[in-house]
Amino acid sequence: MLHVILLEAALELVPPELSAKKMVQKQAYRRKKKPNEILLDQTYHGQAMTQLNDGTRRGRPDIVFFCLQSLLETPLCKAGLMTVHIQLYDGRIIQVDAAVRIPRNYERFVGLMEQLLLVGQVPPEGAPLLKIQAPGLGELISSLRGSSKDSLALLAVEGGKHTGLNDLMSVLPSSLEAPVILGIGAFPHGGFQHDLQSLFDIQVELDYEVMMAWHVCSEVLWAYSLKHDVVSERYLLEQ
Amino acid sequence: MLHVILLEAALELVPPELSAKKMVQKQAYRRKKKPNEILLDQTYHGQAMTQLNDGTRRGRPDIVFFCLQSLLETPLCKAGLMTVHIQLYDGRIIQVDAAVRIPRNYERFVGLMEQLLLVGQVPPEGAPLLKIQAPGLGELISSLRGSSKDSLALLAVEGGKHTGLNDLMSVLPSSLEAPVILGIGAFPHGGFQHDLQSLFDIQVELDYEVMMAWHVCSEVLWAYSLKHDVVSERYLLEQ
Repeated sequence: MLHVILLEAALELVPPELSAKKMVQKQAYRRKKKPNEILLDQTYHGQAMTQLNDGTRRGRPDIVFFCLQSLLETPLCKAGLMTVHIQLYDGRIIQVDAAVRIPRNYERFVGLMEQLLLVGQVPPEGAPLLKIQAPGLGELISSLRGSSKDSLALLAVEGGKHTGLNDLMSVLPSSLEAPVILGIGAFPHGGFQHDLQSLFDIQVELDYEVMMAWHVCSEVLWAYSLKHDVVSERYLLEQ
Repeated sequence: MLHVILLEAALELVPPELSAKKMVQKQAYRRKKKPNEILLDQTYHGQAMTQLNDGTRRGRPDIVFFCLQSLLETPLCKAGLMTVHIQLYDGRIIQVDAAVRIPRNYERFVGLMEQLLLVGQVPPEGAPLLKIQAPGLGELISSLRGSSKDSLALLAVEGGKHTGLNDLMSVLPSSLEAPVILGIGAFPHGGFQHDLQSLFDIQVELDYEVMMAWHVCSEVLWAYSLKHDVVSERYLLEQ
């Protein structure tokens, strides 16, 4: 199984300190919502966000959007061999049902995330496709490792061990039973806020220039899919 | 080199037969544009599009959006080893400068595409990052093949040859000099409108369920990058 965790994601509702700002009020009014019910977004609140603590690494919900579109509905995902979690800026964790179909339209995605952050799960009643969980990152990683002795937790990070694609292929465990956990920051700039490196077995850098989080997701997903030749397995199962 | 061609893309301005529709007029008014200056989009014009010829396969600019976000700014792209073209619904072809940075915000992407389709290139003056070209698909593929005898043109299509990831790796030429051309439909439903199969050497199906166009782009991009271990090459060059 491949378990992807988007870390310290730049995904949150407008915080109280910005809710009185004119550009926030205006956008909220236009969308018929309260200021603290809309997503913080650098595209619309960039100017107000300059006054926000840690402002340059917040308010980029598009990063999560692209990561989810890159991961979900792939053959690996459809084969039931992948899970996805999103750690929020405030530390809470969203559990993503691998069967969820995220809207292609960004506005609709934003509406869905707003509902999730307000209510705690989507849909609000019944079995959730997206749900905010209580446990922290350490607990999540432990539970994903389970009892396997061959689990591997990779943290993709600038300054990590230089790792070409062949290196990545060699590092991945050859057994499909061994859980592989990929941690990747889902924010635009800078390092991690929290000391989470120790939760991972190795830190890897997958290119010598900064990579978009969704490219890292794709690279590891397709390398993992190739390692286990997931598509051929699916064709065999079909017969 | 890997050359990606997004085929018969569901990307166009609102056609004349829909420009008088109320929902189109309303959206155009809100955006301070004329109805025939805005992109056709199923999210907003779905109801009116039911009356449109071939309506179910048009008006999905998000497909091109996700494909470009999956391809551009990757290590392969930055290494100068990839080109991207987009064939429009009307047959014209957009040449994408591999150095272009497509806006992450969907609204801004839409504005950019509207300008491109109206003016013919973006930016309107000077060296274009995106440009509508005259030559047709056959001519484009010939020019991408160049004089190489080892070129390979793959068409990803439902009903093509079952091709697992290991099969894909074997099919890719081992020389970086041999042009690999990937054709992939960038529309939501159905087959190709035009008889373009004969322009390609082989037709491949990369999963037994329908794949999103951007997943096909990612799969081939990362398989190709692995085949030539592009990232390691980049680390070596850096030293």
